[in-house]
Parts: sequence; structure tokens; C-alpha cells
Amino acid sequence: MSDKDNVVFVGTKPPMNYVLAVVTQVHGGAKEVSIKARGKAISRAVDVAEIVRNRFIEDMTVKSINISTEKIKIESGEEINVSSINIVLTK
Amino acid sequence: MSDKDNVVFVGTKPPMNYVLAVVTQVHGGAKEVSIKARGKAISRAVDVAEIVRNRFIEDMTVKSINISTEKIKIESGEEINVSSINIVLTK
Repeated sequence: MSDKDNVVFVGTKPPMNYVLAVVTQVHGGAKEVSIKARGKAISRAVDVAEIVRNRFIEDMTVKSINISTEKIKIESGEEINVSSINIVLTK
Repeated sequence: MSDKDNVVFVGTKPPMNYVLAVVTQVHGGAKEVSIKARGKAISRAVDVAEIVRNRFIEDMTVKSINISTEKIKIESGEEINVSSINIVLTK
């Protein structure tokens, strides 16, 4: 992606918060938005992409979906593996 | 996919149950396995795909990932929208 700002990180808030973030970026001129999440938030990232496409910006399509594994350091100093997803929506 | 049997539906059990199901299908001769999940199990489906690829069958790659929305009828008779994912791993 050329514009690094067009990324929405999905966390533990309600899905509509992230839907609004994506819609705001598109209305601000972004042609592509990357929706990223890790761990249990992955399901919510898929919800966000589907809600944007089906209810808000119907001419957006899924350009690519990538999954990967990231190493995260937890409080004890241990490293654990966490799955991540990157859904790129495009107009 | 030509062989409809090569599908693993990911639900609420621990990820390793589904990892074993995928590995068993590949060892049984499947060249492609489809990992499907809905709702909150989507995160677990991504974990399953990543664990299979990184720890068990390292020459498997992600052939495709699709997301969609399904209508589910709940007990009250109402229809609700649920996100779903289909991750196809191939050798």
C-alpha cells in the first residue's frame, strides 16, 4: 500500500467504532484501507470488513487477505505466537 | 475444490483438535484442505491454518482466503448476520 496511514487496527472495542474509522478514511479520499487485527480480534476484523462492504460502501471489494504469525513478548518475558490478519479493502 | 470431503469446520474446541483433523486429511492424501468457521471461531480458524503451516506441514501454503456474511436463524426466529471465513490450504 502506498499510503501507510490507511490502516485501521481492530482491537476490543465494538465493531462499529472500527467501521466508522474505515468509512471516514474512504470519505477522506483513501482508495484502499487495510484492516489489521491479532488474536481474538481477528473475528471482529472480518465483521468490520463485511459491515463496511455490505452496509456502508457497497462498491468496495476485498483486494487481499493475508494471515501470519507474530511473536509477542508477554509480561513474564516469554515470547508467544499470535495469529494476525490483514484485510485490504479497495474501491 | 473438487473433493467436498476435505473440509474442516472450526468450532469451539481447542485449536489442536482441528489441526489434527487437517493433518489427518493431508496424510490421507488430500492435496487441499478447506478450513471454515463462523463468528468468533474465525480467529481460531486462522490459528489452525497457521499452526498447520508453521509446525506440521511446512510445504503447505495458503491458496485462498474468502470472507462472507451468512444469515443464521436464531431461536426466536429472527435472522442475524454472521461473518464467515474459508481458508484453503494447498500442498
